[in-house]
Order: sequence, then structure tokens, then C-alpha cells
Amino acid sequence: MSTIDTSTPRHRTSPDAWCRSWTHFSVDRRNPGYCRVTFDHPPINTITATTVAELAELVGLIEHDPDLNVVVFDSANPDFYLAHYDTENDPAKTAALGVGPTGMPAWTDVLARLSRAPLVTIASIRGRARGAGSEFVLACDLRFASRENTLLGQFEVGIGVVPGGNPMARLSRLVGRGRALEILLIADDLGGPRAEQYGYVNRLIADDQLDGEVEAIASRLARFDHEAITRTKSYVDQVTLPADSELPPAIADFRELLRRPAQQAQLARLRELGLNTDSDLERSLGRRILESLPGGVSR
Amino acid sequence: MSTIDTSTPRHRTSPDAWCRSWTHFSVDRRNPGYCRVTFDHPPINTITATTVAELAELVGLIEHDPDLNVVVFDSANPDFYLAHYDTENDPAKTAALGVGPTGMPAWTDVLARLSRAPLVTIASIRGRARGAGSEFVLACDLRFASRENTLLGQFEVGIGVVPGGNPMARLSRLVGRGRALEILLIADDLGGPRAEQYGYVNRLIADDQLDGEVEAIASRLARFDHEAITRTKSYVDQVTLPADSELPPAIADFRELLRRPAQQAQLARLRELGLNTDSDLERSLGRRILESLPGGVSR
Amino acid sequence: MSTIDTSTPRHRTSPDAWCRSWTHFSVDRRNPGYCRVTFDHPPINTITATTVAELAELVGLIEHDPDLNVVVFDSANPDFYLAHYDTENDPAKTAALGVGPTGMPAWTDVLARLSRAPLVTIASIRGRARGAGSEFVLACDLRFASRENTLLGQFEVGIGVVPGGNPMARLSRLVGRGRALEILLIADDLGGPRAEQYGYVNRLIADDQLDGEVEAIASRLARFDHEAITRTKSYVDQVTLPADSELPPAIADFRELLRRPAQQAQLARLRELGLNTDSDLERSLGRRILESLPGGVSR
Repeated sequence: MSTIDTSTPRHRTSPDAWCRSWTHFSVDRRNPGYCRVTFDHPPINTITATTVAELAELVGLIEHDPDLNVVVFDSANPDFYLAHYDTENDPAKTAALGVGPTGMPAWTDVLARLSRAPLVTIASIRGRARGAGSEFVLACDLRFASRENTLLGQFEVGIGVVPGGNPMARLSRLVGRGRALEILLIADDLGGPRAEQYGYVNRLIADDQLDGEVEAIASRLARFDHEAITRTKSYVDQVTLPADSELPPAIADFRELLRRPAQQAQLARLRELGLNTDSDLERSLGRRILESLPGGVSR
Repeated sequence: MSTIDTSTPRHRTSPDAWCRSWTHFSVDRRNPGYCRVTFDHPPINTITATTVAELAELVGLIEHDPDLNVVVFDSANPDFYLAHYDTENDPAKTAALGVGPTGMPAWTDVLARLSRAPLVTIASIRGRARGAGSEFVLACDLRFASRENTLLGQFEVGIGVVPGGNPMARLSRLVGRGRALEILLIADDLGGPRAEQYGYVNRLIADDQLDGEVEAIASRLARFDHEAITRTKSYVDQVTLPADSELPPAIADFRELLRRPAQQAQLARLRELGLNTDSDLERSLGRRILESLPGGVSR
Repeated sequence: MSTIDTSTPRHRTSPDAWCRSWTHFSVDRRNPGYCRVTFDHPPINTITATTVAELAELVGLIEHDPDLNVVVFDSANPDFYLAHYDTENDPAKTAALGVGPTGMPAWTDVLARLSRAPLVTIASIRGRARGAGSEFVLACDLRFASRENTLLGQFEVGIGVVPGGNPMARLSRLVGRGRALEILLIADDLGGPRAEQYGYVNRLIADDQLDGEVEAIASRLARFDHEAITRTKSYVDQVTLPADSELPPAIADFRELLRRPAQQAQLARLRELGLNTDSDLERSLGRRILESLPGGVSR
């Protein structure tokens, strides 16, 4: 917008800052305009307190880099893009993350800053992205997904909690009320075709062309004028981003509901069934979540 | 949300209240979490003052039942889900309905309370749902429809009036401006595939699988934690529901425009052609409405 | 709405006003309720200061005609619906347009008044509509497009500027954040099928049926009650139109960014490649814009 003050040059981050060693993803700054981030946290790319802390740092680099036009987020694991959040049986680790620069809880802060960063963020999705993994892709600007190999979902209501990153705020604006309620309340997995039909992703690309087509898009964006990208995105942000005040309350609901004995028992049952491991449960979580409810599958 | 006061238990309705004899639909409380309501008002499931009064009572039961997670609304008539409103040539009957607990006119009140009831409402659509019938399904949370046998539409502009239940407020948020204007102003029927493409319904299901799949969804929802459903839906409501103040004015337009002589003459002509009966006119109302305009079909 | 004052008859425009000779389009008032406007500005239907001035006058006629229910905008050139804006190498011509009756810059004013005119406007799209051409179709109420022969796009970011007519405000509300960002930032052409999938157009119609089906729709609308159309549209406007205050700032960004030397050089290179002529560049602008960037295609 014309009201943006462009007279003060933004802080140029030292290139060294990008080259540190990351734990849960690798970073490849392909050229000044284009960076690729590859999630790589075996066995199934769960998001932990460590992932959140590293993403918070990465977003800080991204939002202050005047040369960077586009960041692509993909996964080293073709079956799991980002499985979901894992507290590692130690909620204190998550609690210790505190709040981010926006004053919001760390995870909410990462998503909010990512969504309004002054460049283009692309989720190149192959495999499963559920819970916080789905919240992450919803906070990216563009979502391209493998036609044959994509499963998205918010399974939280199936374990008796509210999704903590408030995907309600983003999904509702993206797919409309009816389809947002379906995704959030039925809490089942959506395959690629339905995700595309609903607008949960921009569009599907055949799996063997996904990497190439996203590469072409990123290379194109890297050549464009940074200021044109930034200002144009900012106008879209005005119409489509949730207000900061909308986002944080869902985390409190998540925590309040999760600490109930029935939900703790359900989580314990899910861990017995293979949660957080490369298991059949994790591959079919949307359907198999029923097994963890009182009465199990036979009801 | 964390601000919901959960300390005061909600009023638990007497089970007897559900078992009363209903006139225009039947009610089957399949289990504590799941209720099925089947419209059955021969010959074509028109909505009359009686239907509105009964739905108002039913919604009152639904919104105060702490065990109920999901209500499915289907139809005993495979050709007509809910035809449209019928004044029974006696506007005084409709006027006598007065206002509901929200202070809004009775029909608007039923739709508003249904849409924010603290549970999941599902329209399982087979056959025609036009005018107020379409407004009803738009006020439900989820809409699943028969792939082969669905016709939806708001024909009101074709008879020279504004749709009274303000589907403008709901459709615009669901399908976007362009498609909402098309549905409302061209005022023709939409078949299932176009309704799905536009987002007027969540998605189509093959007719012979519709009942089974909706049953599976409802059974799943019935097992989930009530509080997780309620709070998650409430976040979506904040983003997607029209403000109460938006809804009522359309009814005044509807009444003002309908009482004009030209519109009364058009209605009389439609009744001659078979309105409110199981006629070809009712089966093809979107197209045949042109016959009731001055000049008829030959123009 | 019931608050509209219908006691004062609107000004009835002299029929002669319609019959003036237009330069960049022809006007066919087929009957009192229906007008067809055909863009015809060889070689590729660029929009110039003259087009804007004529459209401003036409919109003035449209918004004060109490008999008119529908205006269809189509093109005499099957390959170019409206190419994009052409400053004719004389920015003073554009500057001389000043502001319109709303107080907004002339082009923004035309789009804003068109979108809320008290009748139905239809873009019947065959060929290319990019930049300001895309902004025009987005300001129409309904968009029907040739299945085989449609290309839509906002290429502005590809030449280092912000789209000046603020399609950010309209596209975001029509196709959602993710797809709006894709269209605006990747700045490539969308073919008909993707435009329909995203909701950029209402729907596609087979090219050989497009004219006939739009004719049938317009003829239907022409017979409907004017007041019912006007009031119903007005309710949709309340939910879906950008506020006037949202629209104008983008023009200032467009001008500020365009006057930079790098953008002037890029424009000069595009003119060498065939901009504003019936060239291969214009037929494949979304893809070939890369050739005008520093480094050209070989990068």
C-alpha cells in the first residue's frame, strides 16, 4: 500500500543466520529470492516444541529478508508431510515455549507471522498433514498437493478437544461454513480430490510432476519484483486474514479439554495403538480414531 | 471457547417432550447422541404455519439437550425434500406465528436458532428443496445430497418477491457473490452436480449410498465429546454466521412485494398450473415459472 | 430492502442517450428490459482512457434506467474479450479522466458503480481478459465463459506493479485467500477449467452454446420484476461488496511502482515483443512475461 514506509531499509539478516544447523528441517537457500525448507523429523514428521522453536526462528529470518520472494515447504518423508503435534509426554516442554513476538502463544504466533510475512509461502504437500500439520499448511499462502498421495484433516474433535491453532478461523474463510464444519466436526481425513474440491488446497498436481511444477512456480516468483509481491499480498491480507484477536482463545480450550481424564485415557489408548510412530494407526488416523473412543470399534 | 460458562448445567429436557406426536415430520431419537427427523407432509412436503410452529418447538428441544450431538433431517418423499412455503391462502395463519425467542419473525427465528444450536445438524437431501425449503437446508450445518435426485433453488425473484428468509445472507457466505447472485436472480433450479460445484451442498453421494453414508457420519458424531463439538462449532459460527440484525428485513420486503396485484395474479396463475400439488409444475418449477409471467411461455 | 425509498420515481433517461455513437463498443437495446454491449476496439480490445470515459457514461445510463433488468457484455473479437489497459504512451490521457461521481479515480469509480447498479450485469466471456479486463469481469455480477476459449489473469505483479483496480478486494471474496494469492502473485493465465474450479467465473459453457445460453438467461431476467431483482441484489451487495474505502489505494501503488526505471524498461521490452498488438506475446502473455524480466527466458 502506498502507506507502507519504504524509506527505512529493512534489516538485512546475516547470511550466516540461515546456515545454522536445524534439527527438524533442512534449509536450502537456492538463490537470493528463493528458499526451500524440507521437513525431516523421523519417523513421521511430528511437530514438537523443538519444531515450533525452530519455525519461530525461521519465520523471524523470513520476515526480515528484503531479497526473499518465496519459501517452499516440503517433506523428506513421502508418507508424512507433518503428522500432528506431539507433546512428548511432557507438556512442560510446550508450556516453556511461552509467547512469541506478537504476544500470542508460540504456535499461534508462528502461524500468524508466517501468514502475513512479506513474501510468498508455498506448502508442497505429499503425504499426511493432520492437526497442527494441517494448521501449518493453512497458514501458508499457497497449497499444492500430490494428486495420488495427500491426506489432510483436523482430527482433534475426535479426541474430545478443540483444534488449538484455530483452523476454524482459516478454514471457514477458505472453504465456507458448511465444508469447514464438516472437516472440523466429522474430523475425518480428506483425500486430495476432496481437499481440492473444497478449496482446502489450491489444486492437485500429479505426484510425479509436483516437485517440478512447484519448482517452476518458485523460480518464477523469485524473479518478480519484491515490492510488487509484498504490497499486493498485503491487500489480500486485509480482506482474508483473521484478526490477531481471533486466534489465541482456541489454545485455552484445547488445553482445558485435553486435561480431562477421559481425554487422557483416550490419548493413552492411541499411544498403545501406535500414535507418533510409523504405524497403520497413523496412516489411517481419521478412520481408526473411533477405536480409541469408549466402546472401541465394535459399537 | 474458554469464556463459555460450563458451571451451570443446561436444562435437561424431559424425554417425553420428544415423544409427542408431530404433524409434519416424525422424530426418531435413535440414541442419546443422535436424532433423526423425517419430513412427511403429503403430498409434497410444503412448509406451512404448522410446520414452522413444530420446527420452532423441535429446535427448542434440540438446543437444550446436553446429550444430543447430531440431528439428521431427511424426507419420507423421495421427490420432494421440502417443496417451499405454502400460505394455505390464509396469510393470517402465518401472521399468527408472531416472533420467536430471538425476537425475530417465526421463520427467521427458527433458521437462526437452528444454525447456532450447540450440536451438528445435517440435511440429507433427496428430491426438491426450493424457496423456504432451500432456506432450511442452508441453515443446517452440513448438506449431503443425492447425486441423481436433487434440485435446489430460490425461485422467489421469478414471482416478483425477495426471498423472505434471507438466503442472501447465507448463500453469499457459502458460494461467493457471483454464484449467489446467479442462484437468487436467475432463480432457476440447480441440479446436484452444479449445487456441489458451487458449494450450495457439501457434496453429493450416490443415491443408493446416501442413507448409509449419512448414517455412518451421524453414528460417528454421536460418539464424540459434546463439549468439543459445541466449542469448535462456536468458533466457526463467529466467522461464518450472519449477524441477527441482517436476517429479518427480507421478510418485510417479501410481504410488501407479494401483496402487489401483479404478484397476486401470478400466484393465482401458478395455482391453476398445479402449485402446492404433486404436479409437473412443481417438478419443474424453475423452468415453468416463466409460464406464470405476463405473456406466458410464448413470448 | 424495505428501507429503500420507492416513492420518488428514478430519472428516466432519454432513449436518445443510448443511441449515441460509441467508439469502443456497440450498444443494442434489445428490449426495455435487456441491453447488449459488445466490445469492439481492434485489434485486441485494449482498454484506454476513451474506453473508460465511455464506460463511465454507459454506467450512468444503466444505473438510472428503471426499465432495464439486465446488461450483457460480450466481445466482437473471439480471441480477446478485453486485453488489458493501454496508456497509449501518454499517461496524461489517463490522468485527465480525473475522478467519477463517487469521488474515486475514474476506473475504480466505473467498477464500483457497475457492481452495485440496480440490475443484473453479465460478462459473456470468450477469449482473453487480463489486467483491467479481468477487473472489469470481476465487477460484473455474473461471469459465464467459453469452455474452450477463455484465458483470465492478473499479470501486473509480473511487471512489478500492484493491480490498480484492486482485484485483490474482489477476487479474495470470490475465490478465497489461497486461490486469490495464486492468481495475483504467480500472475499467470488461467484457462477456463481452472477459472471455473476456483470460482473466478460462475461456470463454463461450451463455446458453441455460450451465446444461446446467455441469451436465454438474459431474456428470462428481462421478464422478471425489476424491484424484486434490485432489492434481492442489494442484500447480496451488503455481504459481498468491498467498502468504497477499500478500493482506491491500489491505484496509487500501481502508479508509484510503474514509474520506476526498471518497470519502464520492462514495459519498453514488452512493446518490442508485441504488447498491445495481435501478437503471440498477447496470446501467451502469462507465460511470456518472463521474457521481459532482466535475464529474459534463458535464466
